[in-house]
Amino acid sequence: MPLMKIHVRKGRSPEQIATLMDSIHVAMVRSFDVPERDRYQILFEHEHSHFCAQDTGLSIERTDNVLLLEVVSRPRSKEQKTAFYANLCDDLTRNCSIAPTDVMISFVENTDADWSFGHGRPQFLTGEL
Amino acid sequence: MPLMKIHVRKGRSPEQIATLMDSIHVAMVRSFDVPERDRYQILFEHEHSHFCAQDTGLSIERTDNVLLLEVVSRPRSKEQKTAFYANLCDDLTRNCSIAPTDVMISFVENTDADWSFGHGRPQFLTGEL
Amino acid sequence: MPLMKIHVRKGRSPEQIATLMDSIHVAMVRSFDVPERDRYQILFEHEHSHFCAQDTGLSIERTDNVLLLEVVSRPRSKEQKTAFYANLCDDLTRNCSIAPTDVMISFVENTDADWSFGHGRPQFLTGEL
Repeated sequence: MPLMKIHVRKGRSPEQIATLMDSIHVAMVRSFDVPERDRYQILFEHEHSHFCAQDTGLSIERTDNVLLLEVVSRPRSKEQKTAFYANLCDDLTRNCSIAPTDVMISFVENTDADWSFGHGRPQFLTGEL
Repeated sequence: MPLMKIHVRKGRSPEQIATLMDSIHVAMVRSFDVPERDRYQILFEHEHSHFCAQDTGLSIERTDNVLLLEVVSRPRSKEQKTAFYANLCDDLTRNCSIAPTDVMISFVENTDADWSFGHGRPQFLTGEL
Repeated sequence: MPLMKIHVRKGRSPEQIATLMDSIHVAMVRSFDVPERDRYQILFEHEHSHFCAQDTGLSIERTDNVLLLEVVSRPRSKEQKTAFYANLCDDLTRNCSIAPTDVMISFVENTDADWSFGHGRPQFLTGEL
């Protein structure tokens, strides 16, 4: 159920985008122990001028590979989030040649009543999930 | 005040998009008992490859009509959200021929201080709303 | 760290967009007392038909300059948010000729564990920030 909103700059091939989305999904499933088909992703491609990611003074150098991932999810523990950050960077380095310095993540949490996956029903409340 | 971010795939006509946005607004007003002009909507059209919505194992079949609605709102009760999910699917079926299997919704809640509708003021704190 | 998602209608020049993004950043730094390089911004340009912002009955007239700013941030006080709303409108009027009637803002809050700025680490938890 996490909803993953992926922000990148323009310039990737369709194959690169597919591999990127796949890699993010695999890292998420591995970190949160959710069903394989718990996949809800939107990828946005932005002009360089429209997407700015500096570093809060952390001396992190960004390239045009920079990626910002917004996650909307029911609550996850600090440990799960921390594991996800590390797993995601590992997978993006290996599969997409995106350096850990180019990966930024932001979570927002919600609750069981906040999701309907179809049929106009809140599946976490009805017991279907 | 709910902010409605509507995600669809490319391929709808301007008329279909207008009807879709109108229908979502009507279902929202009916479900949350807010003023008619409480309308704040952004519609995003995505490439098929950039928008993925599976089913968490719920055996829900999606089509190219798939719609994901993100709602940002002050707190609403479980009952109000549940009513909205059902009302929205009813209206989208009737007005837009979008099946309830193609409608996914995700809420995020915030508070009174989190909104300014103009003039640089927080209208829920100033008593204007 | 606030993530700023800026929604406008199409029709601005690259220079106007750059000035707009700069102005929002300056107002944010001034209001929240964060580092200068705490800059994370995405600007979305929407078709008129795809971006609707009415007024909840507040008699606020919008023009094509209308701007909706979504902020994702760790908790900020009511006073900080209120100051930001006013500062932002001041700066947008002066620098961008955007009237306070055209500026709408919505906050969503999260926590320390919800941010990774790079390296696959949660910098607010590790003590790096």
